[in-house]
Amino acid sequence: MEKVTCTAPVNIAVIKYWGKRNEKLILPINDSISVTLSSDQMHAKTTVARSKSFANDRIWLNGTEENIENPRLANCLKEIRKKAQIDAEEHFHICSENNFPTAAGLASSAAGYACLVYALCKLCKVEGDFSEIARQGSGSACRSIYGGFVQWHMGAAESGEDSIASVVKEAEHWSDLRILILVVSDERKKVPSSKGMKTSVETSTLLHHRATHVVPDRIKKMRTAIENKDFDTFAQLTMADSNQLHAICLDTFPPCVYMNQVSHQIVRLVHQINQVSNRTKVAYSFDAGPNACLFLPESHLNEVAGYISNFFPSNADNYFRGESIQPQNIPQDAIDQIDLEVQEKGSLRYIISTKVGSGPEVLEASGSHLLNSEGLPTGVISC
Amino acid sequence: MEKVTCTAPVNIAVIKYWGKRNEKLILPINDSISVTLSSDQMHAKTTVARSKSFANDRIWLNGTEENIENPRLANCLKEIRKKAQIDAEEHFHICSENNFPTAAGLASSAAGYACLVYALCKLCKVEGDFSEIARQGSGSACRSIYGGFVQWHMGAAESGEDSIASVVKEAEHWSDLRILILVVSDERKKVPSSKGMKTSVETSTLLHHRATHVVPDRIKKMRTAIENKDFDTFAQLTMADSNQLHAICLDTFPPCVYMNQVSHQIVRLVHQINQVSNRTKVAYSFDAGPNACLFLPESHLNEVAGYISNFFPSNADNYFRGESIQPQNIPQDAIDQIDLEVQEKGSLRYIISTKVGSGPEVLEASGSHLLNSEGLPTGVISC
Repeated sequence: MEKVTCTAPVNIAVIKYWGKRNEKLILPINDSISVTLSSDQMHAKTTVARSKSFANDRIWLNGTEENIENPRLANCLKEIRKKAQIDAEEHFHICSENNFPTAAGLASSAAGYACLVYALCKLCKVEGDFSEIARQGSGSACRSIYGGFVQWHMGAAESGEDSIASVVKEAEHWSDLRILILVVSDERKKVPSSKGMKTSVETSTLLHHRATHVVPDRIKKMRTAIENKDFDTFAQLTMADSNQLHAICLDTFPPCVYMNQVSHQIVRLVHQINQVSNRTKVAYSFDAGPNACLFLPESHLNEVAGYISNFFPSNADNYFRGESIQPQNIPQDAIDQIDLEVQEKGSLRYIISTKVGSGPEVLEASGSHLLNSEGLPTGVISC
Repeated sequence: MEKVTCTAPVNIAVIKYWGKRNEKLILPINDSISVTLSSDQMHAKTTVARSKSFANDRIWLNGTEENIENPRLANCLKEIRKKAQIDAEEHFHICSENNFPTAAGLASSAAGYACLVYALCKLCKVEGDFSEIARQGSGSACRSIYGGFVQWHMGAAESGEDSIASVVKEAEHWSDLRILILVVSDERKKVPSSKGMKTSVETSTLLHHRATHVVPDRIKKMRTAIENKDFDTFAQLTMADSNQLHAICLDTFPPCVYMNQVSHQIVRLVHQINQVSNRTKVAYSFDAGPNACLFLPESHLNEVAGYISNFFPSNADNYFRGESIQPQNIPQDAIDQIDLEVQEKGSLRYIISTKVGSGPEVLEASGSHLLNSEGLPTGVISC
C-alpha cells in the first residue's frame, strides 16, 4: 500500500467565477482571478492510499464515510486513473479534513478538491497540469492548485483541456498584502453556489453581458494591478466585482441573496474608512455567503482591525485568530466621522487574520497521515 | 385671487425608471410603466392660488413653509408661467399635504409634483399635456398625471418635449387587480433615489445594457400583459424588473442598498406562496426603499393576507388599512409547506390595501381648500 498526505489552500476570487457553459465538465463563462490564502490558517488535509487489497474506492470527509458515487468525485478519480493508467483492480482510500469549521460557511470545496486531486496525482505520479482535473471536482478548486495570484482561463476547447489555472504572480511578489476573514453570524439556508449559478445562467438578463463585456477588461486590469502591486486599483476592482456578482445573483429569478444585513454594514464600514481616509486602505469581497474577505496592506492592518473592533464589538474571547494582529484604539473623533451605528455584539463571530500563501504541499512526516497501515482513518480528527 | 384644489395619486413602476440622460430636464435612459394607485388610500392634495396682491411665490408642504427656490420647483413654475403667459407681477401661493405619513418612506414626490403641476395647469388654464411639466419636478411624477396603467416614454428630443406619459389602459380595464403596500420598519438613512441613479449611471457597468437591451423588450411584453390582463406575465415581469433595479443598485459604486432583511423575507414568502400553489398568485415590487408593493388578483387577496399575517405577525392594532380585507386563517399543513421562519413581531409596521386608481382630480367643494381667502394656509393639517 502506497500513501501520500497533502495540504491545499483556500482561495478567494477577486474577479469572480459565476456561471458555467458546460455543467458536466465545469467550464466557466468567463476567466476569474483569485488570491490563494496561507495554509497556516486554513487548509484541507488529505491522505490518499492505493492498494490492490482494497475491495473498492472509499472516502472519509471530516470523520464520516461519504458516498464515493458522487459524480464530481467520480469524474476526478476517472481522470486520474486514465492519466496514470491505473488498472481496475487497484482502489483508492481517501481521508480528508479541514482545519477550519465547515459550519462557518467558508468555501471548503475548493481546498478539498484541490487537495484530493493534488494528493492523488502525487500518489499516482501524474505529470503536468493538475488544475484541469481539480476543476472537474469543483470549478474554483483549479485555482487552489497554485499559490499566490492565480488566473483560471475559461478556455475555448469543448473538451475543457484549456480551461486551466495559471500563476499570475507568486505569493512572495506581494508579501505585505494581508487578508481578514470576517465570519458573520447567520443561520439561514443558502442556495448552493452551483445551483445559484445555474439559475443565473438560465434567468439573468445581465449575466451574459457581464461575462462577455465586463469581465475581460477587468481581468486585464486586475493582472496589471497585481503585477504593479497597485493596491488602489486592486481594491476598486475587487469591490466592484464582488458587488457585481451579488447584483447578478439578485437579477436571478427567483433571486439569490447571499449577503445579509451584517455583510452590507461591513461594506458600508469599508467605504466609510476609505472615504474619511481619502485613500483606499481596505477592500471587501463576498462569495456565495455572508462572510466578508477583506484585503489590505499590512500598514493598515491594525488600524482597520481597530475600526472593526469598534463597530462590530466581540461577545467572546479569541475574536482575532491567526496571524498576529494588534487592533488600534481608534480616537473618538475618528470614530465620529464614520456614519455607521455600532452593531450588536456578536454580529461577527470571529475574524481570521491571514495572508497570501503558496499552493498544495506534500507532508513528508509519517505522523501526518490520516490513514493507518490498513488504509483506514486514524480516527483522531484534529478539527 | 383665484384658487384651485386638486388631489393626485401615487404610482408604482412595474418596469422601473433608473438613470437619467439629462439631469436638468430629467430625461430618462429608458421607458417605464407604472400602475396608478387609488387616491382613496394615498394621495397628495394641493391648493394653488394666483394673485397680483401676493408679493412673491410661496409654498407650504405638510404644514411648513419651504424654500421656493428649489430648482425643480422653480423649473415647474417657469414652465407653467411660460405656457400660460402669466406676467411677472402675478404670484402663486401653494399649499400641499399628503394623506399618508411621509415618515413611512412611501414615494411622495411623484404624487406631490403631479398634484402641484396639475393644480397650477388647471388654475392657469394650460391646455394639452401636463406630464412633461410634472416630469421636470420629479421624473416619476409624470406618470401620476394619469390613472390606470401608464407608460413614460423616454423620448428622443433634446428639449424633452417627447418625454411624456401616456395611458396604456385605464384603471377600469383591470378592476380586480389589487395592491398591498407592506410598510417595513426601518430607520436607516437611504441614499436619495436621484443621487443613487446618478451614481449608477456613472459607475454601473450593467445599467447601459439594461436600458438599451433589456427594458425595450420588457416594455413591449408588459404592455401586452396589461392589455390581456395576463397576471402571470405581468407578475413575472414586475418581479424580475424590481430585482434588476436592485441588482443595478448593488452594481453601483459604492453600492446602494435599499432593500433590507425584511424586504428579502417578503420576496421569499411571495416566491414560496407561488411555488406551493403551482401558480403565480402574487408579485412584489420595491422602489428605492425597503417597503414592498404586492400586486395580486382580488381572488387571492384574503389568502395572501393570511400568509402575511402568519409570517409577519402584527404587534399593533389597525394592521390592515384601506380597502376592506379579511385575512384567511391558513391551515397548518399549508403553513408547513412554506420554507420561512415566522418573523419578529413588528417587522412590518402596517399594510395598506388599495387598488388601481384614476388620475388627478379637481375638488370643487369650497371646504376642501388648503389656502384661505388671504391665500394663507387654513392651518388645520389633516394628516
